[in-house]
Amino acid sequence: MEPLFTTARTKELIPRIREFVLDELVPLETPEYLTGNFSKVAAILDQKRELVRRAGLWGLQHSKNEDGLGLTLAEFGQISEVLAWSPFGHYAFNCQAPDIGNMELLHKHASGSLNQQYLEPLKAGHIRSCFSMTEPEFAGSNPTRIGTTAVREGDEWVINGHKWFTSSADGAAFAVVMAVTNPDAAPHRRASMILVPTDTPGFQRVRNISIMGDGSDHWGSHAEVRYTNVRVPVSNLIGEEGLGFVLAQERLGPGRIHHCMRWIGISERCFDLMCYRAATREMEDGVMLGEKQFVQGWIAESRAQIDAARLMVLRTAQNIDQFGAAAVRNQISAIKFFVADIMLKVVDWAIQTYGAMGITDDLLLAWYYRHERGARIYDGADEVHKTALARNILKGYGLDVNKNKSVNKPIAQA
Amino acid sequence: MEPLFTTARTKELIPRIREFVLDELVPLETPEYLTGNFSKVAAILDQKRELVRRAGLWGLQHSKNEDGLGLTLAEFGQISEVLAWSPFGHYAFNCQAPDIGNMELLHKHASGSLNQQYLEPLKAGHIRSCFSMTEPEFAGSNPTRIGTTAVREGDEWVINGHKWFTSSADGAAFAVVMAVTNPDAAPHRRASMILVPTDTPGFQRVRNISIMGDGSDHWGSHAEVRYTNVRVPVSNLIGEEGLGFVLAQERLGPGRIHHCMRWIGISERCFDLMCYRAATREMEDGVMLGEKQFVQGWIAESRAQIDAARLMVLRTAQNIDQFGAAAVRNQISAIKFFVADIMLKVVDWAIQTYGAMGITDDLLLAWYYRHERGARIYDGADEVHKTALARNILKGYGLDVNKNKSVNKPIAQA
Amino acid sequence: MEPLFTTARTKELIPRIREFVLDELVPLETPEYLTGNFSKVAAILDQKRELVRRAGLWGLQHSKNEDGLGLTLAEFGQISEVLAWSPFGHYAFNCQAPDIGNMELLHKHASGSLNQQYLEPLKAGHIRSCFSMTEPEFAGSNPTRIGTTAVREGDEWVINGHKWFTSSADGAAFAVVMAVTNPDAAPHRRASMILVPTDTPGFQRVRNISIMGDGSDHWGSHAEVRYTNVRVPVSNLIGEEGLGFVLAQERLGPGRIHHCMRWIGISERCFDLMCYRAATREMEDGVMLGEKQFVQGWIAESRAQIDAARLMVLRTAQNIDQFGAAAVRNQISAIKFFVADIMLKVVDWAIQTYGAMGITDDLLLAWYYRHERGARIYDGADEVHKTALARNILKGYGLDVNKNKSVNKPIAQA
Amino acid sequence: MEPLFTTARTKELIPRIREFVLDELVPLETPEYLTGNFSKVAAILDQKRELVRRAGLWGLQHSKNEDGLGLTLAEFGQISEVLAWSPFGHYAFNCQAPDIGNMELLHKHASGSLNQQYLEPLKAGHIRSCFSMTEPEFAGSNPTRIGTTAVREGDEWVINGHKWFTSSADGAAFAVVMAVTNPDAAPHRRASMILVPTDTPGFQRVRNISIMGDGSDHWGSHAEVRYTNVRVPVSNLIGEEGLGFVLAQERLGPGRIHHCMRWIGISERCFDLMCYRAATREMEDGVMLGEKQFVQGWIAESRAQIDAARLMVLRTAQNIDQFGAAAVRNQISAIKFFVADIMLKVVDWAIQTYGAMGITDDLLLAWYYRHERGARIYDGADEVHKTALARNILKGYGLDVNKNKSVNKPIAQA
Repeated sequence: MEPLFTTARTKELIPRIREFVLDELVPLETPEYLTGNFSKVAAILDQKRELVRRAGLWGLQHSKNEDGLGLTLAEFGQISEVLAWSPFGHYAFNCQAPDIGNMELLHKHASGSLNQQYLEPLKAGHIRSCFSMTEPEFAGSNPTRIGTTAVREGDEWVINGHKWFTSSADGAAFAVVMAVTNPDAAPHRRASMILVPTDTPGFQRVRNISIMGDGSDHWGSHAEVRYTNVRVPVSNLIGEEGLGFVLAQERLGPGRIHHCMRWIGISERCFDLMCYRAATREMEDGVMLGEKQFVQGWIAESRAQIDAARLMVLRTAQNIDQFGAAAVRNQISAIKFFVADIMLKVVDWAIQTYGAMGITDDLLLAWYYRHERGARIYDGADEVHKTALARNILKGYGLDVNKNKSVNKPIAQA
Repeated sequence: MEPLFTTARTKELIPRIREFVLDELVPLETPEYLTGNFSKVAAILDQKRELVRRAGLWGLQHSKNEDGLGLTLAEFGQISEVLAWSPFGHYAFNCQAPDIGNMELLHKHASGSLNQQYLEPLKAGHIRSCFSMTEPEFAGSNPTRIGTTAVREGDEWVINGHKWFTSSADGAAFAVVMAVTNPDAAPHRRASMILVPTDTPGFQRVRNISIMGDGSDHWGSHAEVRYTNVRVPVSNLIGEEGLGFVLAQERLGPGRIHHCMRWIGISERCFDLMCYRAATREMEDGVMLGEKQFVQGWIAESRAQIDAARLMVLRTAQNIDQFGAAAVRNQISAIKFFVADIMLKVVDWAIQTYGAMGITDDLLLAWYYRHERGARIYDGADEVHKTALARNILKGYGLDVNKNKSVNKPIAQA
Repeated sequence: MEPLFTTARTKELIPRIREFVLDELVPLETPEYLTGNFSKVAAILDQKRELVRRAGLWGLQHSKNEDGLGLTLAEFGQISEVLAWSPFGHYAFNCQAPDIGNMELLHKHASGSLNQQYLEPLKAGHIRSCFSMTEPEFAGSNPTRIGTTAVREGDEWVINGHKWFTSSADGAAFAVVMAVTNPDAAPHRRASMILVPTDTPGFQRVRNISIMGDGSDHWGSHAEVRYTNVRVPVSNLIGEEGLGFVLAQERLGPGRIHHCMRWIGISERCFDLMCYRAATREMEDGVMLGEKQFVQGWIAESRAQIDAARLMVLRTAQNIDQFGAAAVRNQISAIKFFVADIMLKVVDWAIQTYGAMGITDDLLLAWYYRHERGARIYDGADEVHKTALARNILKGYGLDVNKNKSVNKPIAQA
Repeated sequence: MEPLFTTARTKELIPRIREFVLDELVPLETPEYLTGNFSKVAAILDQKRELVRRAGLWGLQHSKNEDGLGLTLAEFGQISEVLAWSPFGHYAFNCQAPDIGNMELLHKHASGSLNQQYLEPLKAGHIRSCFSMTEPEFAGSNPTRIGTTAVREGDEWVINGHKWFTSSADGAAFAVVMAVTNPDAAPHRRASMILVPTDTPGFQRVRNISIMGDGSDHWGSHAEVRYTNVRVPVSNLIGEEGLGFVLAQERLGPGRIHHCMRWIGISERCFDLMCYRAATREMEDGVMLGEKQFVQGWIAESRAQIDAARLMVLRTAQNIDQFGAAAVRNQISAIKFFVADIMLKVVDWAIQTYGAMGITDDLLLAWYYRHERGARIYDGADEVHKTALARNILKGYGLDVNKNKSVNKPIAQA
């Protein structure tokens, strides 16, 4: 625990959660449960959820007016790191993406009746949900380009479109769909968010996309989805018409903290595996792997970089808590690429430390290597965040790159 | 084709082989055949092998006294690159590892009867083989530490041991096993190579190890194998007793060229995918991905580095052809880590260029990302080759690191 | 200012100091004062010191019982960053190395009469001092290997030895010399620190070593020094006999914070220069350099990494304040290599942003490029700190590398 | 010597040249001659030039119709590497930039009388010259933007303009000046090259720019120059009017080979220094620096990368010899950034290997560190070459970035 960010609540909660993760979840990391389909482990995790409830650790992320603990983002971030010690941590505690984001979204912006029908069972862990935004035809780095439309006909939205990377769609009770409702508005005011039950006619989960060798199902799925004349009541609109991007932005700050702290948890787990191997693998009689400078270099670099990553994220979380996300947008951009890069380096070094065993599915490392490569891509590719951050900084020096563009000046190749 | 290394034979062969690969093999790269088990595609590849034979392109690697073309290593290396444009190339042409190495080994060092029984059908593509050296209990970076033993009892070797990463063992007709036959000899003269038919009692393929999400079978398998009182005739010895390491070393030069040229082929394939995406993916109206400097940087760096890698490998091949592997051991060490590093960078950049699609199994990139991570580990971890190369260079400056060690001086941490 | 570490005192002091640095010191960064000898600018800086005194900003580093403000290390660290905005900042405020370390050393461990004679004028800025430890014949990474001896004869130490990188020796009133006084003690208890006035017979400043093109003099000098039968009173011993390393260690924590915060100040300065250039340099009609992604990438990476560096250092400082240096030795090791690496990257990117102008002495960047390369070397090469950190971490996993060495086991090359 | 590129002539010449460099030039690398002004060593080098002439090694770069040996570019490249073993090598053999380029330029494109007056004494080593192209006001990466003008008045050009980085201007007999003669032509046809004797009224060498701490003079100078109503005969035009860029382009291929092979020579020199240090520096009793894996890693990486760099450059040279520079423009772009990067890494690792001594001017390394940082900037910043290479590659995939720009489409930030 980092003294800078320790509070009375983290001091009390974290050791209990850590113990739970180590005792109940880490033993589930068998090749059987890691490879292939999530549904193989889901039933067991449901039992673990029961233990979480009994331990009074359910719903840690909820605000006080949701009958939650009202943890700050900096506090919950530290819990998120501990949960990420296991790939099953967040699921067992029902604070897994995309449900955690959808819960917050519904709580803040959905009507009471929608919430009774969907938010309550979601918070209870009785149903799951998905978030349907990315489209194969358009670059995700430019979220204003969306092909899915929702046209109002009477009391209904008629939705048509094609999505993919609708994560966890397989088995979800509903999707939150981003669709263009106001095609003639300014680019950032065209889309809205609409709740679509997955059993609505016209909602077709085409397939669970196979990702890095895993065509996983259930919560582990990343689905391609077609919406064909899907009709839902107008009251299924979340927030106001045209506010789709505003709501998506609002998700951004807390969502980024969740992601990044999960990555730090993963980094720590891999660091631990690496150090253990270094200390126990004999290379020659009495000579251990950890005596090699190459390995020592990886350990030292990892230690420094993970610590730096954690400080960056928790500082950003605390600033969001204090000043709001808008005030620290640069920090929110920076942690995305900064932490993803570090995590993937640590995973890679840990694999190299294990040699051949590192690439087998006997160990957690190969799983992270495959499943976390996406970290540099999803939620905005690193490159997008770097340019956004730089452009924002340069505004302070009098250069408005976007404005320059709007007058259609040709941009030379430096 | 690199003019420096083009010969009349490569000029004639390479376009034909490239055409075959593009027409017959690239279309097989469907998610169905890439993910999961190799046996799904094996039958189709057998048909392709028939086409290869008809085209007169079978057995390209064989020397003249094996009734082959007698291509130089530099020539065959260039062919190997073209084959590697498809993950199925080497298999279709029956010059896939580990069979290509085993063919050469048997041809040079096995008795005539062994060869009639095993080498001929192997060259004909009627059977497959495996190479059984790595052991889970010992660090692969120190090949003199081997636990498997072969004890002579009468006319038989009795073999006991535990191996893993015995690649392609599933379905193989025989294994070449490295076992200690002379435990009291100097470390490098203790082991021998023995041919073991896989249907010999006591040969137990424990499992196909799942690697990076693929528990593949058939030629794609990486097996854990137990040898329990496995008895084979003494005539199954390959080469002489105690020469196991010498033979393994002998494999090294050509084997390294094969690997490295395959990696370069993979790099070129991914480079092509990356450029295609950059040129065709629209980011905004009329603005293509390839106009972004970040992507241009990846393309430029990839181009330079792949070219450098090819020159390094073909120059080493040509030097082996002219001066023998022993004369250019440093070059053989250098290309291992130099080329593996470049390939993995190119694969990674190509994935990033594709964004979300890059991590799906819809594309070849994720497959390479997973399956080629091992390149920095197998055949000696990069770190091993770096230290070996450096130590050899330092000998020229009067420092014999190994000798220093032999007098048991403590080695400080710099 | 980083909210996490802001205090009432930093809030009051830092704006005033920043203003002073910008108004009084930055204008001095002319090629004339930067290149060549420090003595050219020293007289002017003495006038600036007078202004510092008048502004009540003299002696910021002193503890309360030295009649100072008693700033915490975390507070003074933040001031040190601001001072480092100019290469002349620390000197103008009389808290430059090595004097700042010598002041603390004398204050804590020297006799009253020594302090009256040397510490008081040092604090007043009337004299300067140097620290004489590194020897050309022995690797600095192993501080227990020292050739300089101090032999007691009657009431005097007789010192003989050869030092270099005795920084600021040219014009210094005295040197603190590390010399072996107890050759038969354990390695870490052999040396002592002795104060040697530079006008003592036998003290010979051989030369000011030319470093990266600068054979600078005065405070900017890095001298080679010979001690030939140098005789000083036994009372010139600082601390107790044999405690040289203990005292050097004690310097370590605060000294590291000083160094690292100075590097962060340098990084911020170069970052500012880089952004200014990006925003104002036209590449084509109306197209500014800052619109190029390559430059945006440098800016974004720099921003993230400098922030991370600052958090790492101030967190370490605060931990030293709270728990003592011994408790956070790993953090003290980590910041050395972590921050030095970042600073040198930022300097390099800033140079590249300026193109040809970046390598001229018209700008501060080339000066930093040359003078701060040593950051990865002095105060223990980065590699030393990495191995130290890793070994300490591995102890927690049961591997004691040093103990392993003590039984003289040969260490293989991984 | 790399067998791939060895010819009878290199086999005969290179050992002789190497011996000369080692015997006559390496001993001159004293701090006295390295730091400060080139004029201090110039007189001695003139004596060495006399030895070069006597050894029949003068003018190695000349073509047969210049009474030279007519070495191929690949052959001369290998000689250039050997010369670069010393910072004084090229000068001693009178094939230093910018004179070598000016000789070729005049030989091919200047009138007979100009050549008699300037080329002959230049080839004889009796005078020196400079090349005046870069301007402080315009980005060097866009060579069509030039402010210097040459207006024809009667039989004279009247030149006005402001240049810097006019290398070797101090003491040069003449400058080749790039000036706009045809302001209304297409951007690439506006400028011409004009020979300007430096004693022409209005030619003012403002200063020798201090670069990385060296305000060197003579051949080592990099001058700022003002041209104020400088009048020269119209016959001083080199080549045709408006062909300035064409001629500059023509210089490019051979010039790039010269630069890159010089960088490789520097890399080899630093590699040698690094290995020597590793083999001879004792860290503890009997433990040498070269036994540390960190150092071994630098040595191994350096060896591989320098070899790769040499193969890349000599292959490009051979291709220019065979197919012309236009055919391998991509290769010419690639070697610029590929080799500069490698050289600077090797220099940096060598410094780190020496520790504190590495940053002193007692050794050649600090000199290279300072003086070769410009390699990533001059002759087109690396970034320019990367984008040029990528754009050219992408044309093959159907994307014409420049064309896209010409229709003024806004280019988004990826």
